[in-house]
Amino acid sequence: MSELIWINGEIMPLGDARIGVEDRGFQFADGVYEVVRIYNGKAFTLDAHLQRLAKSAESIEIKLPVSGTQLRGEIVKFIARNPLADGMIYLQLTRGAAPRNHAFPDCKPTLLFYARALDPLGDPAKSQGVRLITVTDERWKRCWIKSIALLPNVLAKNKALAAGADEAVFIDDGVVTECSSSNIFIIRGRRLLTHAVGPKVLPGITRAVLLELAPTTGLSVGEESFSEDEAIHADEVFITSTTREISWVLQWNQIPIGSGKCGPHTLALHEALRKRIAAETA
Amino acid sequence: MSELIWINGEIMPLGDARIGVEDRGFQFADGVYEVVRIYNGKAFTLDAHLQRLAKSAESIEIKLPVSGTQLRGEIVKFIARNPLADGMIYLQLTRGAAPRNHAFPDCKPTLLFYARALDPLGDPAKSQGVRLITVTDERWKRCWIKSIALLPNVLAKNKALAAGADEAVFIDDGVVTECSSSNIFIIRGRRLLTHAVGPKVLPGITRAVLLELAPTTGLSVGEESFSEDEAIHADEVFITSTTREISWVLQWNQIPIGSGKCGPHTLALHEALRKRIAAETA
Repeated sequence: MSELIWINGEIMPLGDARIGVEDRGFQFADGVYEVVRIYNGKAFTLDAHLQRLAKSAESIEIKLPVSGTQLRGEIVKFIARNPLADGMIYLQLTRGAAPRNHAFPDCKPTLLFYARALDPLGDPAKSQGVRLITVTDERWKRCWIKSIALLPNVLAKNKALAAGADEAVFIDDGVVTECSSSNIFIIRGRRLLTHAVGPKVLPGITRAVLLELAPTTGLSVGEESFSEDEAIHADEVFITSTTREISWVLQWNQIPIGSGKCGPHTLALHEALRKRIAAETA
Repeated sequence: MSELIWINGEIMPLGDARIGVEDRGFQFADGVYEVVRIYNGKAFTLDAHLQRLAKSAESIEIKLPVSGTQLRGEIVKFIARNPLADGMIYLQLTRGAAPRNHAFPDCKPTLLFYARALDPLGDPAKSQGVRLITVTDERWKRCWIKSIALLPNVLAKNKALAAGADEAVFIDDGVVTECSSSNIFIIRGRRLLTHAVGPKVLPGITRAVLLELAPTTGLSVGEESFSEDEAIHADEVFITSTTREISWVLQWNQIPIGSGKCGPHTLALHEALRKRIAAETA
């Protein structure tokens, strides 16, 4: 079955959907996006994603062309039409199309979303560790906005891949901020640390769920910054995102991290996350 | 006559041209662009623009799908088809369309350009001054790449417009870098200063032409940084871009600059630029 897209209220095959050359998403990165995970034919943490979308859009003064409730309804209907066992919704909102000019035009925003199947992630206890490399954080200072101005992230990710690693960690003035498409956590003893949300850190939804679940697994949490050296010497390090859930870190700049396998706290957190997912998408 | 576009080798009405939703220019700001001025049916400084395009593309590892010579030939033919007295070519190159993933895909780049008529700029001696406001430079650190990740520039420009000004000046750690869509210069005595090209400053083509022409008008030039306070107390301040040429600055954060009219050195520079334009596009 070919992939479908909802675009400005119409549903069509994804391959047939087209946007105009002067859409500001194409010429100015003037837009925001969300990626929502589907499990068992249901969207996980959909409301949290839609709340973040509303905040991102408001911060760059784009008005959603439908109400949040209507958008939620459209997404739920869309997913029900083709209930994927494992998948995601990619959603994008741009300021719309108008003759090219930096000034905000008076035009109708472009809103679209489509679903895509993903491979199931499998048993957390058998998951593979990831390799990180460090890159300088050269991004702008409003990374809390989930904008489509992702070129710096794309370049960082590909630097990691070219080095034989899986993900790039941004270091800003000596401090670990986040990765090119994931948040990063370290565990020291029974303490779970991650950088506070702000200029250099996106409020990841998986990040928020884990900060909520951590105390139930015996960890205390701190939204505190840490250096690369502190991270490399932590007991456990992991990264999170909507599509990857949790990936434990095996190496950082080719230095082995922790025990060389998925640490017990990371595993407990992943199991708690899976329970939350199962409960919400049963 | 409706506007035309050249897109991946085909010419069609601009309004008919469409790009795919998964073009990386739309989802990742994964592309670069140029704006070239047309005078008297001819492109001004076309080679300099194409050289900069090649550098921008190389820096983010996008390969032009045609040779520079071929592209130049296509642009010249396109302009000749509808020779605008005053206009511009907007050109954009993206990595192309592929299923969304930060990793560089194996796909064909999207290359397009279109022409648009512009109002003639009129006599420099009768030009209007512009009003500037200061904004914090929150952009990424590779502004020398002319990328389409322009959201920070769009937000800065609109902050200026909302404040009743025309353009926003970025200040990075106390230093004046450039504006949201223009380079900035100050004149003190017989010295012309502008920030060096680099992490926070685009190598503007009009900027380069003026640095070359300045000595012929009796000015010495320095690619040196200066503070907002130094700029506000300069004898003359002006901004430059391909579409605006030179605009003298009347006010900065509502403070009057210089004499309240276009200064003599700025005027002499603008006249020298006009001569260069006339010579190249006769």
